Amino acid sequence: MLYAMRIVGIDPGLATIGLGVLDARSPYDMQAVEWLTIKTKAGESASSRLAEIHADLTAFLRQTKPELAVVEKLFFATNEKTAMDVSQARGCILLALEQEHIPLMEATPLQLKSCITGDGKASKDQVRDMLVRMLSLTEIPTPDDAADALALAVFGALSIKTTMIA
Amino acid sequence: MLYAMRIVGIDPGLATIGLGVLDARSPYDMQAVEWLTIKTKAGESASSRLAEIHADLTAFLRQTKPELAVVEKLFFATNEKTAMDVSQARGCILLALEQEHIPLMEATPLQLKSCITGDGKASKDQVRDMLVRMLSLTEIPTPDDAADALALAVFGALSIKTTMIA
Repeated sequence: MLYAMRIVGIDPGLATIGLGVLDARSPYDMQAVEWLTIKTKAGESASSRLAEIHADLTAFLRQTKPELAVVEKLFFATNEKTAMDVSQARGCILLALEQEHIPLMEATPLQLKSCITGDGKASKDQVRDMLVRMLSLTEIPTPDDAADALALAVFGALSIKTTMIA
Repeated sequence: MLYAMRIVGIDPGLATIGLGVLDARSPYDMQAVEWLTIKTKAGESASSRLAEIHADLTAFLRQTKPELAVVEKLFFATNEKTAMDVSQARGCILLALEQEHIPLMEATPLQLKSCITGDGKASKDQVRDMLVRMLSLTEIPTPDDAADALALAVFGALSIKTTMIA
């Protein structure tokens, strides 16, 4: 890549949404720009929490101006209630990205782990350790959801590189 | 009720969203106003379909000005992919309602059937037949998703009456 591409990783949820932004010139030149979480209160209605996620994410996208978004693709086998809550929130996240005209890439947890550590069965800690090295950070970014979002952004940077070589 | 309350029923989906609007003065005086479906194309990306649902629903709400929305509450045990697609769409529907400041009521299929036919195990056809009688229609509204949405609006009208008596 001849210029830096700004990529946002998004870890979807209803209570906590992780956001991580980086600028990538190459797989060896990635710079973390910002990472944080959007949080909504359990006491509020689902509708009001979805509206907050949509408004806060839209404001964040307008401020950071990413050129690509990587959103975790979800698989559920366990808690149906959580699955529906998170999917509803994910719908509002995809909507905000579409409204802001930001191209979307999706990554499953398996793809994310394989891409960053070379091992689809890597632990979350192994992914975060690798993240620190790849982004030349001094410590693991916090909170966890923001670190996971940065990992998704790294996935985006590495996937684009792969596409360009292919 | 001393004045007519306008109620919209919404049957959520990604490919087809049913919408039904009625004006209710009492359980014996309900008038169907409008029913239709929003459809999105299978060939488009999920993000673009969600944006279309959000935009079309928002336009419909501004035009019909309902004072209450009843949205079907979903339960899934079978197809996980469909569950996530519909939940993502449902999230964008709840968002549009919240942004337009329309109060939300939810109804499970069991609650809907019990309320309209007195039998939680009633068939969809039994619900639709009852709907024709309650709304003094000459035939079953089409398409099916719009009829189901009108049934949700009837549920809203009957639930409010019950609340007022209680």
